[in-house]
Amino acid sequence: MFREQIKVLDCTIRDGGLINNHYFNDKFVRAVYEALSVAKIDYMEMGYRACRTLVPDANYGPWKYCDDDKISEIIDGIESDVKLAIMVDAHRIAEQVFRPVDESPVDMIRVATYVKDVDKAIAMVNKAHDLGYETTVNIMAISKEIEKDLTEALDQIAKSPADVVYVVDSFGYFYCEQIEYLVKLFIEHLPGKEIGVHCHNNQQLAFSNTIEGIIHNTNYLDGSLYGIGRGAGNCPLELIMGFLKNPKFRLSPVLKVIEDYMIPMLKEMEWGYMIPYAITGILNEHPRAAIAMRKTENKDKYAKFYEEIRAIE
Amino acid sequence: MFREQIKVLDCTIRDGGLINNHYFNDKFVRAVYEALSVAKIDYMEMGYRACRTLVPDANYGPWKYCDDDKISEIIDGIESDVKLAIMVDAHRIAEQVFRPVDESPVDMIRVATYVKDVDKAIAMVNKAHDLGYETTVNIMAISKEIEKDLTEALDQIAKSPADVVYVVDSFGYFYCEQIEYLVKLFIEHLPGKEIGVHCHNNQQLAFSNTIEGIIHNTNYLDGSLYGIGRGAGNCPLELIMGFLKNPKFRLSPVLKVIEDYMIPMLKEMEWGYMIPYAITGILNEHPRAAIAMRKTENKDKYAKFYEEIRAIE
Repeated sequence: MFREQIKVLDCTIRDGGLINNHYFNDKFVRAVYEALSVAKIDYMEMGYRACRTLVPDANYGPWKYCDDDKISEIIDGIESDVKLAIMVDAHRIAEQVFRPVDESPVDMIRVATYVKDVDKAIAMVNKAHDLGYETTVNIMAISKEIEKDLTEALDQIAKSPADVVYVVDSFGYFYCEQIEYLVKLFIEHLPGKEIGVHCHNNQQLAFSNTIEGIIHNTNYLDGSLYGIGRGAGNCPLELIMGFLKNPKFRLSPVLKVIEDYMIPMLKEMEWGYMIPYAITGILNEHPRAAIAMRKTENKDKYAKFYEEIRAIE
Repeated sequence: MFREQIKVLDCTIRDGGLINNHYFNDKFVRAVYEALSVAKIDYMEMGYRACRTLVPDANYGPWKYCDDDKISEIIDGIESDVKLAIMVDAHRIAEQVFRPVDESPVDMIRVATYVKDVDKAIAMVNKAHDLGYETTVNIMAISKEIEKDLTEALDQIAKSPADVVYVVDSFGYFYCEQIEYLVKLFIEHLPGKEIGVHCHNNQQLAFSNTIEGIIHNTNYLDGSLYGIGRGAGNCPLELIMGFLKNPKFRLSPVLKVIEDYMIPMLKEMEWGYMIPYAITGILNEHPRAAIAMRKTENKDKYAKFYEEIRAIE
C-alpha cells in the first residue's frame, strides 16, 4: 500500500507523556527525533502547549508546555525533514504564547476538542492559521457523541481554515465498520479537507482501524513507538511503516530506538493491551477507572473490575 | 453483533501447548474447561493427537497426544455443554487410535494441513467422519500458497464430508482486505460448508481479521485466553466475546481464569506482540527465526534481526 499523500505523525512524546506527566528527558526526546528523521517520518508531536497559569508547572515536565526554545534546544544540530507538531486543548486555552511560525521550530498546531468546545477550537485554529501554522482539529471521544451534534460541529469546522480533521477513538471502542462510517461522514461534511485517524488500542484494533482509515482515504495517520500512549496506548508506528511500504521509509532506526529506549522504559511505565483497558474499550468508557485500578494492589483482579464497572454503567 | 450460527472455539491448550511442548498441568486444563463451560463457549481444543511412534513422548506432555482417557479424567464431574476438539496434522498420521465418537469424550477432529497434503487431510476427514466426529480442515500457511493450488485443494475438500474449512493465517501476515478475499474464495469453492478463521497476532491484527471473517459470513472463530499461542499468539477469546454480544456468553469466568492462570504464566512463558514477530509477520515468514532469537541474549536486538532476516529473504 503506497499513496503519496499519506502523512505519518509520531505522537510518542505527546501521548506517551500522558503516562508520566510529560517528564521525558532530553536524551530520549532527542533520540526519538533523530530516529524519526532518519526513518523519514513526516511529523513528530512534541507534547502540549499548556498555559502555566491554568496548569502550574510544579507537577509537569517540559513537554506539557513545549516552549519554542526548549524544542529548539532538543533538535539543535540534527539534520531533519521531520515537521514538528504540538497539541493544544481547546477547553484549556488561556495565556499560551504562540510566535509567528517563522520564529518557531513548530510547524503544526493540533487542536484537541470535544464537540461541545468546537467554537473554542475554531478560534484557536484561526489564530494558529493566521500565525502561519498548519492546523488540525482532533475531535475527541466521538464514540460518545450524538451524530447530529457531531455533524453540526463538522459543518462549522468546514468553514474554518483547519487543514486536517481527525477522527479520534479516545476510548478504543470502534471497530472497522464504525471507522468506515465516521471517515465517510467526515469526508462528506468537510469538503476539501484532509482527514486523519488517531486510534487507541484497548481492543487491539488501533492498527486495523488505522488501515481502515487508509482504505477510505484518510491521509493523516497517528502512531507511536511500540504503541506507547495512555492506557492501552496507540497504533504502533512500526506497524504503520511496515504496512505503507513507502519507499522513503527506513524501519531500522525506528526498531533501534524501540530496543534502546522503549523496552527498558516498560520497566518503569506501563502501556499496551491489558484486560482492564479492554473492558473499558468494550463498554465505550473513558479508561480512567482502568488507569486508577492499575495503580492499586488489585491491578489484576479483572473479573471484580468488570462486575464493578458494569454495576455503575 | 450477534449471529446464532457463530461458534467460538478456544484453542488455549492446543496452540498454547506449542510454547511448552504441551506440558500444561491437569489443574490448569481443568480450570480452563470449567471457565469455558460457565462462559458458554462452544468448543475447547485440547491439543494434538500425535502418534507416539512418530513423536516419542519423552519430550512432550499429555496434550501432544490427547488420549481419550486423559481427557475424560480432566472433564470428570464438571457440568458442561462445551464440545471438545482435538487436532491432527495431516502429514503426521500413522498409528493414532480413534475410537468411535460415542466411546470418546471428543466431539470434533480438526485436521491441520498444508495445501500439498490435502489428500492426506481428506483421508483423515473421511475416517473421522465415518467414526461419527464433526470434522474441520485447517489449511495452514495459505499466505505462501499459489492461488491455483489453493483452489484445487478447496475443490477437492468440497467433495469431502468436512463440516468446516478454516482460513489459517499461520504467519500473521494478512490484513482485512486479504481476509475478505480469501473468505469469499473459500465460500465460492466450498458450497454448503461452514468457513472458519484462525488468526495470529504478529501485527496485532488477529482480532480485527476475525471480525473481518465474521462480517463476511465466517461462522467458526478461534480464540485463546489472553491470546496465548505460539509466537505472537492468537486472537484473544475475551475480545471475541466482547464483540459478539451473544446473550448466552458470560465474560467474568473467562476474566477470572485469565487473572488466576494466564497472568502468572507470563512469568514462565512468553507470547504476544513483540517486534521480532511483527517483523516475520510483515515479511510473510514463518516465526521460527523470531522464536529462536527470543531464546538468545540478543532477544531485544530488533534492528539487527530485521537486517539479518531481510538479507536472507
